[in-house]
Amino acid sequence: MKLLEDRIREDGQVLGADVLKVDNFLNHQIDPDLMMALGEEFHRRFADAPITKILTVESSGIAPALAAGMAFHVPVVFARKHKSLTLKDNLYTATVYSFTKKTSNEISISKKFLSADDNVLIIDDFLANGQAVEGLIEIIGQAQATLSGVGIVIEKTFQKGRQLLDERQIHVESLARIAAFENGQVVFAPEA
Amino acid sequence: MKLLEDRIREDGQVLGADVLKVDNFLNHQIDPDLMMALGEEFHRRFADAPITKILTVESSGIAPALAAGMAFHVPVVFARKHKSLTLKDNLYTATVYSFTKKTSNEISISKKFLSADDNVLIIDDFLANGQAVEGLIEIIGQAQATLSGVGIVIEKTFQKGRQLLDERQIHVESLARIAAFENGQVVFAPEA
Repeated sequence: MKLLEDRIREDGQVLGADVLKVDNFLNHQIDPDLMMALGEEFHRRFADAPITKILTVESSGIAPALAAGMAFHVPVVFARKHKSLTLKDNLYTATVYSFTKKTSNEISISKKFLSADDNVLIIDDFLANGQAVEGLIEIIGQAQATLSGVGIVIEKTFQKGRQLLDERQIHVESLARIAAFENGQVVFAPEA
Repeated sequence: MKLLEDRIREDGQVLGADVLKVDNFLNHQIDPDLMMALGEEFHRRFADAPITKILTVESSGIAPALAAGMAFHVPVVFARKHKSLTLKDNLYTATVYSFTKKTSNEISISKKFLSADDNVLIIDDFLANGQAVEGLIEIIGQAQATLSGVGIVIEKTFQKGRQLLDERQIHVESLARIAAFENGQVVFAPEA
């Protein structure tokens, strides 16, 4: 998506070998007009799927997920992160390992908000190693809901997340795909 | 706001003497169409203020703040919560006490995203004892930015937050004002 690639080129900050900081429009300061455009683009790309619910993880997934929810006119549910859970009654939970922080978090959603009748679109800000998306897919499985697809704002094609999802034949749409960082610049991969 | 009061009557769950659970449309599952309507209502109520930025706290403030940002077409910044911070360089921070959880959290925002040129509208999901809003006001003070007003989705008039803001002559707009819970039912206060 050219609008997003342009914005990443203009405002993204490449840190080291594999980190892209986009905290000025996506995950700390948020550009609402850009979010609206991303939401409409997700809607266009998953127009044929009978989506009943959008699922994401707090906090930085909430903005793109809400924008998508506005385009689809379906509820958005965000999984909560916890260090560890003692009360698991009425919750679906999964463990998510963060390669960046080298810690595990449990994510959970209330059983009230996901059922076997749901067709779920997962939305997240980044796809790198795919751990957060895998956790959400596990929760969808627990609820016996149907996974209709995964919509990602920024994918890093050089990390293993996309491959894991492709192997399971999941419909993935990433609005920007980063192939590499070269000399502090972002090199985009073709859309796929 | 009648649309919101109706929704609280229909879907809100009164727990004990002073807790209203609205996790099926506001802070766990989110109704995007309702958020859009709330955002437009905030815009209408603060139409005369020269807002340049919307400020909230993760996670449950993000959805109404983003919806307001879409109506104002200005950036939204959400403060992050931390147990305690070691690295405070380039951050504005404030300590927020939670009466519900009986713990203190630090909230922070990057100095990049708030400056003396900003006219800030604070948006949050609940106003009860006002601790989160006070923390955000402290951060706005550190940045020497101007506070233009505070927009709240649900205010509990019987807790002290509103009074604290009124005493400081801050322009507060709450879209639903709860005066009491009686026999498990919500009693609304007139708008003010």
